[in-house]
Amino acid sequence: MNELRFPNNRAFDFTAIGRLCIDLNANEINRPMEETKTFTKYVGGSPANIAIGMSRFGLNTAFIGKIADDQMGRFIRGYLEENRIDTGNVVTDDTGAVTGLAFTEIKSPTDCSILMYRDNAADLLLTPGEVSEALIANTKLLLISGTALAQSPSREAVFQALQYARKHGTIVAFDLDYRPYTWKSQEETAVYYNLAAEKCDILLGTREEFDRMECFEQEHGDTSTATRWFNHSAQIVIIKHGQEGSIAYTKDGASHRAQSYPAKVVKTFGAGDAYASGFLYGVMQGWTLEKSMSFGSASACIVISSHSCSDAMPGAEQVHDYIARCERGEIVV
Amino acid sequence: MNELRFPNNRAFDFTAIGRLCIDLNANEINRPMEETKTFTKYVGGSPANIAIGMSRFGLNTAFIGKIADDQMGRFIRGYLEENRIDTGNVVTDDTGAVTGLAFTEIKSPTDCSILMYRDNAADLLLTPGEVSEALIANTKLLLISGTALAQSPSREAVFQALQYARKHGTIVAFDLDYRPYTWKSQEETAVYYNLAAEKCDILLGTREEFDRMECFEQEHGDTSTATRWFNHSAQIVIIKHGQEGSIAYTKDGASHRAQSYPAKVVKTFGAGDAYASGFLYGVMQGWTLEKSMSFGSASACIVISSHSCSDAMPGAEQVHDYIARCERGEIVV
Amino acid sequence: MNELRFPNNRAFDFTAIGRLCIDLNANEINRPMEETKTFTKYVGGSPANIAIGMSRFGLNTAFIGKIADDQMGRFIRGYLEENRIDTGNVVTDDTGAVTGLAFTEIKSPTDCSILMYRDNAADLLLTPGEVSEALIANTKLLLISGTALAQSPSREAVFQALQYARKHGTIVAFDLDYRPYTWKSQEETAVYYNLAAEKCDILLGTREEFDRMECFEQEHGDTSTATRWFNHSAQIVIIKHGQEGSIAYTKDGASHRAQSYPAKVVKTFGAGDAYASGFLYGVMQGWTLEKSMSFGSASACIVISSHSCSDAMPGAEQVHDYIARCERGEIVV
Amino acid sequence: MNELRFPNNRAFDFTAIGRLCIDLNANEINRPMEETKTFTKYVGGSPANIAIGMSRFGLNTAFIGKIADDQMGRFIRGYLEENRIDTGNVVTDDTGAVTGLAFTEIKSPTDCSILMYRDNAADLLLTPGEVSEALIANTKLLLISGTALAQSPSREAVFQALQYARKHGTIVAFDLDYRPYTWKSQEETAVYYNLAAEKCDILLGTREEFDRMECFEQEHGDTSTATRWFNHSAQIVIIKHGQEGSIAYTKDGASHRAQSYPAKVVKTFGAGDAYASGFLYGVMQGWTLEKSMSFGSASACIVISSHSCSDAMPGAEQVHDYIARCERGEIVV
Repeated sequence: MNELRFPNNRAFDFTAIGRLCIDLNANEINRPMEETKTFTKYVGGSPANIAIGMSRFGLNTAFIGKIADDQMGRFIRGYLEENRIDTGNVVTDDTGAVTGLAFTEIKSPTDCSILMYRDNAADLLLTPGEVSEALIANTKLLLISGTALAQSPSREAVFQALQYARKHGTIVAFDLDYRPYTWKSQEETAVYYNLAAEKCDILLGTREEFDRMECFEQEHGDTSTATRWFNHSAQIVIIKHGQEGSIAYTKDGASHRAQSYPAKVVKTFGAGDAYASGFLYGVMQGWTLEKSMSFGSASACIVISSHSCSDAMPGAEQVHDYIARCERGEIVV
Repeated sequence: MNELRFPNNRAFDFTAIGRLCIDLNANEINRPMEETKTFTKYVGGSPANIAIGMSRFGLNTAFIGKIADDQMGRFIRGYLEENRIDTGNVVTDDTGAVTGLAFTEIKSPTDCSILMYRDNAADLLLTPGEVSEALIANTKLLLISGTALAQSPSREAVFQALQYARKHGTIVAFDLDYRPYTWKSQEETAVYYNLAAEKCDILLGTREEFDRMECFEQEHGDTSTATRWFNHSAQIVIIKHGQEGSIAYTKDGASHRAQSYPAKVVKTFGAGDAYASGFLYGVMQGWTLEKSMSFGSASACIVISSHSCSDAMPGAEQVHDYIARCERGEIVV
Repeated sequence: MNELRFPNNRAFDFTAIGRLCIDLNANEINRPMEETKTFTKYVGGSPANIAIGMSRFGLNTAFIGKIADDQMGRFIRGYLEENRIDTGNVVTDDTGAVTGLAFTEIKSPTDCSILMYRDNAADLLLTPGEVSEALIANTKLLLISGTALAQSPSREAVFQALQYARKHGTIVAFDLDYRPYTWKSQEETAVYYNLAAEKCDILLGTREEFDRMECFEQEHGDTSTATRWFNHSAQIVIIKHGQEGSIAYTKDGASHRAQSYPAKVVKTFGAGDAYASGFLYGVMQGWTLEKSMSFGSASACIVISSHSCSDAMPGAEQVHDYIARCERGEIVV
Repeated sequence: MNELRFPNNRAFDFTAIGRLCIDLNANEINRPMEETKTFTKYVGGSPANIAIGMSRFGLNTAFIGKIADDQMGRFIRGYLEENRIDTGNVVTDDTGAVTGLAFTEIKSPTDCSILMYRDNAADLLLTPGEVSEALIANTKLLLISGTALAQSPSREAVFQALQYARKHGTIVAFDLDYRPYTWKSQEETAVYYNLAAEKCDILLGTREEFDRMECFEQEHGDTSTATRWFNHSAQIVIIKHGQEGSIAYTKDGASHRAQSYPAKVVKTFGAGDAYASGFLYGVMQGWTLEKSMSFGSASACIVISSHSCSDAMPGAEQVHDYIARCERGEIVV
């Protein structure tokens, strides 16, 4: 059992706000992109992936975002709807903005990179007035993501969503998801990440992402990071240390670690999104943090063994099954 | 006596952050600017005026801001120094930005307007890294002003200043000072004003300025405004109702009104800045809110009877004397 | 025989300046892009396609352009080099610009559209100082393309290239290639197209493109168009009338039409580029305009029967063979 | 007599296109601007000054330009009209642009500088569609000025004006008037100056301005400069060599120099504009180049002996009188 208390009697278990984009994943892998001939198109963007995961776990899920008025935008809306995600608050841009793109390059399972197209991206044009107070008031858990803070007016839309969430007692998770594109300076990044994090109940990020937020601080390190946010609204702070695993810190001073599982890694993309959806699902089920984290880890293993991020997001059965197979020793690296 | 407790043992009584600009006041008044021939140059900008007022009241005063690397910028620095304001944290821009200008037009004492030059203004280029934590830690009262929130990176600099003030227990006053220039939308304005106001101890603004901040709210009106901010950090909320006078709301549920004084009005510019400096000075002296507000009102009367804003800011003697003369019936409209 | 006299003793037969980008062609055709799953990557951009065509016809070919410092940019450079095009004047951007993209949608052979990514495109960042006077002085025929005029500094680079061409007697062909993206207004388009066209010997465009250039003129129509440019530097003006075929106007008052050929059309993209390279090749061989135009038409037939633009550009043998097969009645629609 | 043949039967002798702005001249002179207290407001901008001069010489004069929708813009329109300049083609901006400003600093008669405000200036927003073909067709002499080429869409408006002038046989004078503000690079400057100069009959500039235009050329110097432009449309090229005086080159290979006059110099601003209007007036009267240049020189002497530029522009009588007084030895330095 964890200490988080989600509000009851709400139509939506989960709503995500932020980036909706297109992944173009190289079909020919284990080579540089210069030698790639063909790409497969998927819905992408960290909050999109997490929302897809949550919906596949069976949660009532909605999205707040903005898409381009073109074929890519319509593909995104269609895919969300196929995955039973409410798109009533996914607005179509009318300024001629384009859909953000992420071309993936998989040189080897551990040497992956992304070529981003973020200029004039529709998702960054979401305005505060397009954020539905009613939807947030009717949601148990709101997810915000760092990339949506990178530019106006999307930045203001996220702050307005946070204001509504505080007002209505909606729990908020913040997936730091720092991407260098579109931010103007490290200082700008830190200021807005900090303003947002102050208002969130659950923070998830890598050690490097937390360090980036703390560029104005003298003290670094997990303990000072966790303490800083517990002095605001945070109840759970998850800090990811790469190979060494993730640690969940709680307000009572405790730290929690999850079991990890083996995986036949194709690429590393999507691991964080799958982890976040698995973990948040567990927390919403009332599981212990350890169990939730393990569930997240197994979900991540499934995604990194696949070609895509969004499309590979597993259902709950699939994750339980993966864990069971690991425990039976059927999956080894 | 008021309830505010200022920290002790600090080198600076008062530090302002934000706009430093040039006022070009029409010498030929009571006519449209089309018929104006000559202008007189003064230092301007709401926080600059307030800082000048505070220094003339005898307080140890500093400024955090950015000036253009030109004759106008150097004039501003020189004038602040002549007024014994510490300019160690007034940075000179190196990007070719210009000094913001405000041409005033005085058609009649009650029909005044301003023609603003705010494109590429140096003051909006202040960065978070240029905000001195040491100075804020060594200040009793920090003043922020709404215009500095209008654009990046100045916006981030103000949020960083607020963060330092909260960390070190420095009292913060927020002069809303809303100006339509450089803001992109009413929503953007409201979001950042709200984020800043949450972290402030004293809020000063007109009813219209508070309404602007509340554009996402259903309920308007002084009581709901004051309650909203008392739920955050505010201890005093001053709402100005034009002719009908100002009301100071305090956390204990009380409201306070000041006496008003007659004045031979030349123009209305600068009234708010003179009021703010007079009021804040009184509060720092430990006076009652009523007495502080009256002192602010008298200070405003002096400024609106003069040609300039900054240059006309009175010393404490001058304000006490003005009040005495009013009480003796020597000043009538 | 045509009247154009190309300079002798030059190392390069043909140099193109302008857009280098990536085509992402839908592999699943005859459906909307919303239903497309995979895309194949090709080098694209009208002047790139024409240069590839010219090189495959056996001409010594060079390119003046700018590519992004990423995998897409390196792919473009590599492909040009594989096609024996001199890339000594293809500059790599150092500002973080991206490679322009064109996603193609083929709903039917006659219903094709393109989804363009032109924000922050590297090709539009070519500067006048990056245009080699020596290369243009050593080239017989320079091709400029309208898209490179759409934005600074690429616009200035093209005007500088034209200045060098005039100075050194290099013949200039102008492929109007109007694309709405990145132009701010129809007036802006017309002004710069006209300034460039004044300095060119051969103009190729559709009737609609010439109409766009003539938005400030009262008289429209082929005769007034051709006369206008013959009063400047033009010697050949080719106006394309879609289904009704193209007409070449010459300074002596004559008009010339080509034979057309049947084709099994897959898509219409690339027809103009293939036509331009075939026609210009013929003119450089000293063929009559009619023969040159027919060669261009046959070249276009080959490209529109294929999946790509650049990759499908034929060699001279292939074009001659296509014409022969048409004449033998072996190709019918 | 000079060789220029102006068209007959046109309603306007002279039309200028381009910058309309405000000069704010320091009233306290011979000191740095940091110490200046007051400024006097005048209409400014090189083409505005020249047009005012031409009108005062008695020529029918019109202006093509754009002004801000504010008090400064209305002041400019009023002043032009008071000076009998047709403002039917002076458009009022509707985008919120401001009026360009020039604060002058007169440290000594030979040490003068200008502090410019050119961000978001209304005059640079003139569009090609706002340029009246009818007015240019009805004008004998059109003046263009380099500053109007510095930014779109004003740049395109000038090129469109040049196109109309060529079409209708209107003589064009180009006052180079290079100002570093708003240009992005020296290359950009050179490209557009060259494109414009090709279409002009009379070029006036300093040696430094011509050098700037020739940044892509190997050869510099008056002879190569003059020859370059005679190969295009130029008939008179005036190159100013500062203290050493100006030289007018003509297509027949001749060079012409003017007599110079003494002046009690207050400041150097406006000398070039007064010279241009005096010279062009003389040329339109059919005077020899020498006489026209002397008239220009005397006009310049009058302006630099005064506090303003526009307001000090003399009438013809005044210039003749100045020359006579100089010849009688009544004016000495």
